[in-house]
Parts: sequence; structure tokens; C-alpha cells
Amino acid sequence: MSESVPPGIADRMTDIQPFHVMDILSRARLLESQGRSVIHMEIGEPDFATPQPVVDAAITALKAGRTHYTPATGLSALRTAISGYYRDSYGLEIDPRRIVVTPGSSGALLLALGVLINPGEQVLMTDPGYPCNRHFVRLLEGEAVSIAVDASTGYQLNAAHIERHWRAHSKAVLLASPANPTGSIIRDDSLREIVETVSRLGGALIMDEIYHDLIYGDKVQSALNFSDEVFVANSFSKYFNMTGWRIGWLVAPERYVTHIDRLAQNIFLAASTPAQYAALKAFDAETLTQLEQHRQELQERRDYLLPVLQNIGFGIDAIPEGAFYLYADCARFTTDSFAFCRDLLEKVGVAITPGCDFGQHLAESHVRFAYTTAMENLQEGVKRLKDYLA
Amino acid sequence: MSESVPPGIADRMTDIQPFHVMDILSRARLLESQGRSVIHMEIGEPDFATPQPVVDAAITALKAGRTHYTPATGLSALRTAISGYYRDSYGLEIDPRRIVVTPGSSGALLLALGVLINPGEQVLMTDPGYPCNRHFVRLLEGEAVSIAVDASTGYQLNAAHIERHWRAHSKAVLLASPANPTGSIIRDDSLREIVETVSRLGGALIMDEIYHDLIYGDKVQSALNFSDEVFVANSFSKYFNMTGWRIGWLVAPERYVTHIDRLAQNIFLAASTPAQYAALKAFDAETLTQLEQHRQELQERRDYLLPVLQNIGFGIDAIPEGAFYLYADCARFTTDSFAFCRDLLEKVGVAITPGCDFGQHLAESHVRFAYTTAMENLQEGVKRLKDYLA
Repeated sequence: MSESVPPGIADRMTDIQPFHVMDILSRARLLESQGRSVIHMEIGEPDFATPQPVVDAAITALKAGRTHYTPATGLSALRTAISGYYRDSYGLEIDPRRIVVTPGSSGALLLALGVLINPGEQVLMTDPGYPCNRHFVRLLEGEAVSIAVDASTGYQLNAAHIERHWRAHSKAVLLASPANPTGSIIRDDSLREIVETVSRLGGALIMDEIYHDLIYGDKVQSALNFSDEVFVANSFSKYFNMTGWRIGWLVAPERYVTHIDRLAQNIFLAASTPAQYAALKAFDAETLTQLEQHRQELQERRDYLLPVLQNIGFGIDAIPEGAFYLYADCARFTTDSFAFCRDLLEKVGVAITPGCDFGQHLAESHVRFAYTTAMENLQEGVKRLKDYLA
Repeated sequence: MSESVPPGIADRMTDIQPFHVMDILSRARLLESQGRSVIHMEIGEPDFATPQPVVDAAITALKAGRTHYTPATGLSALRTAISGYYRDSYGLEIDPRRIVVTPGSSGALLLALGVLINPGEQVLMTDPGYPCNRHFVRLLEGEAVSIAVDASTGYQLNAAHIERHWRAHSKAVLLASPANPTGSIIRDDSLREIVETVSRLGGALIMDEIYHDLIYGDKVQSALNFSDEVFVANSFSKYFNMTGWRIGWLVAPERYVTHIDRLAQNIFLAASTPAQYAALKAFDAETLTQLEQHRQELQERRDYLLPVLQNIGFGIDAIPEGAFYLYADCARFTTDSFAFCRDLLEKVGVAITPGCDFGQHLAESHVRFAYTTAMENLQEGVKRLKDYLA
């Protein structure tokens, strides 16, 4: 996955890849500007508007002049509100001091890895997985260890994987539940074993739980239900429909908080103030009612899309239980998933994401469908795929 | 300046210092909550509200549902508007593709250093200087080389400094004009020499120009007036009074832009969308008229504060020509500037920032005054200082 960089550019940029989906998206926008119709199933962003109470809270804050810096760890009231969320959703008491408000979960992951990873230290993660994870580790001169996963373990690492791949220089395990691109989740028993194993090995567990409220079967527990020693990154982007606001949070073990505060002061100063005031309304009853409707709509989309894609000939061998993605084997149609995605866009106006955005393991034979567009669009996209691939 | 870190925490955190002013600020807030009056001259944030046209633009965007991700490099219209700013302010034609919108200038500095600095490579900067600069370099496993400066070179590096300190592993020079904490600027002739010297040495020049519109004498040119090969970080925070919005920008040499885009995609996704729509109105005539009034008010504050502090006995041996800071020698009163700041706060309710926040060079005998509070507050603060130090 490496390429050469021009002289003067840091070596790390050899390994930091662009999102290939951006090429697809740019091309799609160009086609649309030329009058072509494109069905967008490439975008990892819900199509729902930010809930009105949240928008209204931002407007109220702006009118009141709330545009100055907040503390680096975020508004005290927001940290308390997030603590309340853990109480209501997970039955957990999390000291607000352990909660740091961040510029999106990107900021949370950078802080967690920044206080943990020395150069050369390893972070274990899945392949396929969220591509930024390995790039954060590379930025910090650590080593991302991508472990191939498949349906046999529900596209997640388990305790045995971690034991098997742990080395002297391993420092942390970074997992997402539900995961991008597979929508797979980690069941409570497996998560407990993972927490215990990483702890026994002397490592740190970083959980990305940004899709944790977008689960379509039985809810699962947060990693925080099993330990106060894990790092949990979360976000207002996905479930709360606040992508562009850039606001998330990190829950950290208590002894790391001083250092996280210090790093945040230096590299971010703070998260966006209007976004923080907006997020104060994210947990209100009216907001949560809307969000639950969105979750149900996403579930209907998944329930529609999964069997029809299988019928067309895409291989989806583990039911995706969360997020808004289906990761599908397209080997029946192509040996080059990127070319396949370009073809689908050019020939029938269906935009999806090639597997190479998520790692190397079987990337050439996989694509990601995002069901972040309305049902009628999904139906139209399916019709086009069916006609073209028949 | 190093301290030990607990086991499990990355070594870099040994060197990444908190802002000591945060202790002062927290203590000040506590005293205020107990009914004490505190004059705030510690805060590096203008007391002006965000201009109304900017706030209104954000509200309009929010009402129109502009809450989704933008491209990682920012809204095309905003990049074009920033290009127009360089045309109007500096007579420069900057291709909007070379302009990347960032989460504050913090984001701009992280991107510039991220694409430039390999582990062990050196970045030359001033001591005293903005503390985050050396911490960004440390985060990336580079080496910050802090060069002591004083009034003899206007508290800035010059070409001779750079020649003298340049080593095989030197990669970049990072300067600010006007600078924090000294308010010093780099005159055109010196800047031209610096640009030429860094270029001849094969290094990269990164200029922090976030206070560039807050200059109280003759304007100076941007580093971009001398070369297309420099990196310039700028921000809507200070001059445009948009601190809490977290929005800035980076102008980069063309051949770096692809890599900067790629890094931004991975570590930020994008800057806050409502903030970007707000910033579209930052260059409007009505906004600029307000901002010019603010600049004049800041100049009046500086013109008041500089001589009265000198009369009290603070040493200010180079006239600060920009930003909103005075860096003052307090050796007549103390050999421990941090204790002195604590004392001033406890005894007379005047909050200022100790020199140790800006480096090591004579830090024990220096403090920073920020004139980010109204004239009547500055007058009251001066009265308290005069009475206490008499």
C-alpha cells in the first residue's frame, strides 16, 4: 500500500493513504453536475438532518455570544450530560472528569493514541477496518498491526487473536463495535474476554463506540461496563446526526486524564464552542425520540438491502448488526473491486466504496454499501445493479 | 522542563507541558466564584464578540441544514474567499487549491509539520515563543530547537540565527509575526532574508501569521509575498474574533497539497461546517469595518499599558508592534515569575501569565500581560499593581 513521496515530504506520508471513496465521490459529483443521476451508497454519513432541538440550542448559544474558547476538556455541563448518558444507557457511573470533549472521535482517537503510543510500539486492529486508525498510529510513529478477520469470528478480533499476535512491543488494541465497514459487533462475552486478555497482557484497550447506538438486534454493553481501565471514543456524529459539527468525546482511565487534558490544550485548544452548546441538547427526550425513529429507519433499510444484494450475487456471510454498512464480496463480478466501483458509477450511476479503503485483506473482492440514503434511492440503486449485473 | 510520567504513558508526555496559565485561570475563576474581583490580563483571547454578520451567517446556515461534512480541505467558496483576502490585503494571487481550511491554526500547524517532519528532524523556533509549537514537533517525534532571543533582534530569529543553528537534521523554521508572547514582528527586509536563507539551506519555512492583521504601526508583508514555497498558518480566531469556532487555514506550496489533503482526511475529516459558513462572512465590508475598530481599540490599550507598566518598573525593552501582548521583565520584583503571578492573583486580584509558559530563556524573570480586556479593567489592574508593588 506504500508509494513514494516527493523529496522534502515526511516518510510517514508514504503510508498514509487517501480515502479512495473521495475519488468516487468527486467523480459522482461531476457526473451529477453534467445531469447524470447518481445513487449515493458510498457516503459514511447519515442523510438525516441534525435534530431540531440541537440546532436550536446552537442558535440560542450563538445569539447569546457563546463563541469563546471553552476549557480544553470541554464544557463542564456537557461532560456531566455525557456522564448522564452512560447512566441512562448503560447503568454506569462515569466521573465527568474522565470524560473529555473532543473535535469528533478523530480527536478522541488522536488523544488516546498520543498519550499511549511510543515510536515502534504496536497497535492491534482488524483488517478490514476504519482506515484512519492505522494512519493515526503511523502519524505517531507507532506500528499498526492489521489482523485479517472474516465471518468465522464475525469480522472482529477475539481474545485468541490478541494472544496470538501480541509481541513485546505491542501496546494497545483498537477495536470498533459496531465496526466500519462490516457493521459487526462484539458480543458481551467476547468483549469481557478481550478486556481481560488485554489487561493481563499489560496493554491498553481502545474501543471505538461511535456506532454503539446504531445496533439492530439486542443491545450490547459498552467496554466501560467491564472495566474503568479502557479508553472509549464516541461521537455525536453518527447516531446524533451531527457529522459536520465535529464533536465527540473520549472516556479515559482516571490516571491518564491530566495528560490527555495537556495534550488537548496543545493540539486542539478545545472543541468548537457552538457545537458543544448544541450537543447539550443531544440527550433530551425530544431529540432521543427522533433519533430512535432514525435508527428504526436505518434498520428497515438494512433489512431491505441485505437479502436483495445477496440475491443479486453479492456475498454477505455474516449479518451486519449495526452501523449503516454492508460489506459484500463481489468476487462473482470482478477481481478488481476498485475498477468495479468505477464501472458501476460510470455505467449505471451507483456509487459504492471499494474494499481498498479498509485494508488489504481480500480488498480486491469486497465493496462497502452504505445505507445512508432513503429507501426509494436504495430501491433504485438495487434496480440498476440488478439490470447491469444480470 | 521534563517530568516523569506514570507507567504506560507515552514518553512524549514527559516533554509536553500544560499551559501554566490554566492554573492561574482556574484559581481566578474560583476566587471570582467566592466574590473576589479579578482583572483578567492572562487570557490570550480577544474580549470582542464575533461580528454580527458572521454570527448571522452561521444561523442562516444552521437553519438551512448545513450540518454535514465538507471536503477535508474545506468549502470551495471559503477557500476562494481566503484567496480573495490575500488579493485585497497583500496584492497576492494565491490559487485556492493551495489553501486548506483547518480546525484553527492548531490544525494548520499539525498538518504542516505532519507532512514535513520525520522523527529526529529539527524545527528551529524562538524562546520565548508559542508553547504549542514545540509540543506539535514533539508529538511527531521531531526535535524542537528553541533559540533564545532578546531585544537585540526584536525578539525574533534572523537569517544569522538560522545559519548558526542549522544542522544536518534541521528541516524547518517555525516563526510567528507578530509573535506570542512578545508582540514582535518581522520586518520585510528581515523576512526576505529569512525566506532566502531557509530556502538556500534546503529547509521549509512555516510562518504563523494569526496576528498579522493586528499590527499597530506600518503593515508588513506576508511571507507569501516573498515565496510560494513557504507554509503560512492563519486563523479566524484572533483578528476575526472567532476563537471558539475553531477555524483557521494553511497556505502550502502546491506540491504538498495532495499530502496535506490526505492527512487532513485522516486526522480531522474536516473543519466544523457551521464555522466554515460563518467564516464566509468574515471578509465582508461590514465585518471588516468592525474589526478595524477593534484593532484601533487594541492599539489604544497597548499605547496606554506600555508606558504605565514601564513606569511601575516592568522592563519592556522592545516596543511590541502587534498581537495583544506585552512581555515584561519583572526581575525588579521577583526571581520566580510563577510565584509572582500567583501572588498578584491572590493579593490584588490581577491575573497575568508566567514566563515559563513560553520557554526557558529568562522565563523566571518575565511575565506576559494580555490587553484582551476593556480599558477600564486595564486601568483598575494597573492601579492594583501600582499600589501593591510600590
